[in-house]
Amino acid sequence: MRKFSDEERDRIHEELIQTGRELLVTYGPAKTTLKDITDPVGIAKPTFYQFFDAKADLYVEIFEREFDEFTEQMQSELSGVDDPQERLEKFFRCYVEFSEGNKFIKKLFVEKDYRDVLENMSSEQIVEIEQKEMEGLIPPIKDIQEQSEGPISEMDPITVLGLMGSSLGLLVLHKDEYEEYAALFEEVQDEVYYQLQEKMISTLARGLTVEE
Amino acid sequence: MRKFSDEERDRIHEELIQTGRELLVTYGPAKTTLKDITDPVGIAKPTFYQFFDAKADLYVEIFEREFDEFTEQMQSELSGVDDPQERLEKFFRCYVEFSEGNKFIKKLFVEKDYRDVLENMSSEQIVEIEQKEMEGLIPPIKDIQEQSEGPISEMDPITVLGLMGSSLGLLVLHKDEYEEYAALFEEVQDEVYYQLQEKMISTLARGLTVEE
Repeated sequence: MRKFSDEERDRIHEELIQTGRELLVTYGPAKTTLKDITDPVGIAKPTFYQFFDAKADLYVEIFEREFDEFTEQMQSELSGVDDPQERLEKFFRCYVEFSEGNKFIKKLFVEKDYRDVLENMSSEQIVEIEQKEMEGLIPPIKDIQEQSEGPISEMDPITVLGLMGSSLGLLVLHKDEYEEYAALFEEVQDEVYYQLQEKMISTLARGLTVEE
Repeated sequence: MRKFSDEERDRIHEELIQTGRELLVTYGPAKTTLKDITDPVGIAKPTFYQFFDAKADLYVEIFEREFDEFTEQMQSELSGVDDPQERLEKFFRCYVEFSEGNKFIKKLFVEKDYRDVLENMSSEQIVEIEQKEMEGLIPPIKDIQEQSEGPISEMDPITVLGLMGSSLGLLVLHKDEYEEYAALFEEVQDEVYYQLQEKMISTLARGLTVEE
């Protein structure tokens, strides 16, 4: 077994993540072999296992890193927004932009390969990803709950995430199916989709924060 | 070509619809042949075409009939509810119950065969179904718009339907996937799903009708 210096280990670890991310985004997990990932990094296929126990571990680390970037960006966008309704709208918008804009996450959630990835993950890995999500998403919800006297103040934060995922999240997932709906307005699909998304954001934020 | 009396025609037409509906619910459109439908009615396969131009026409008529029953039932449930928020909640609840409870519609929307059915429909037939939906769903929305001073009063009724479909409709479609979400609460999947559905109904109705 080849020995690496700490510096080499760090570099290889980093390159495996970068290469893995690019390949997954471009070809998807089903078409990405281990050799595809190790070749550009210049290590032999078996050497991969000195860095990750399994391919799924690499995916988990890519996901966690993307998610960290997202929560950092969201925090900076939310800071300074004091009105709870406006803040919740911004939170929803960040989530939607992340789901739509991040190619890795989108591939993972929108394409069928996603199931394969999930099936290859252990229950510990799935719990790890979920905890990461909760750690990133629950604190901003709690902040809003403290600022608002609306229904959100009495909800379990996970319920708020559930509402977001079951409306805005599913909307992203079904984006391509809004063609027929757009035809009802005799409008361009993309425009109608984004108008609907924006109305959903404002309606949910309103329904959750406005006092009666 | 066998000649039928008007009375016979009516009976056969009715029986084709009833038999077609049962077979579609039990086996789905892909596994339901024309012969499966005509045999129990006691007519020869080619005779079907004296009653419907194509199998898709039978589906359209089954759908329209189910939908008529739904709108009638909804009208009676909404009558007498004067508060716009409460009325909108009831409207959403009727829609969800219809989508979940009607086996034919559920099969049509939730199972993959749906695509085959849609693909076998002409654009005229799809427009016919859409018009039927609009005729049933838009008037109750307009009633609520007149009663409310909230954001709903200024929306295109189709946007309201879009919001409903993109949250409550997609939630029904993805019902089976709420197992993991339920595990976060350490709860029974069905309970969590219905709690989430109920929160979605109240949040949307609130966001659309409450005045600020």
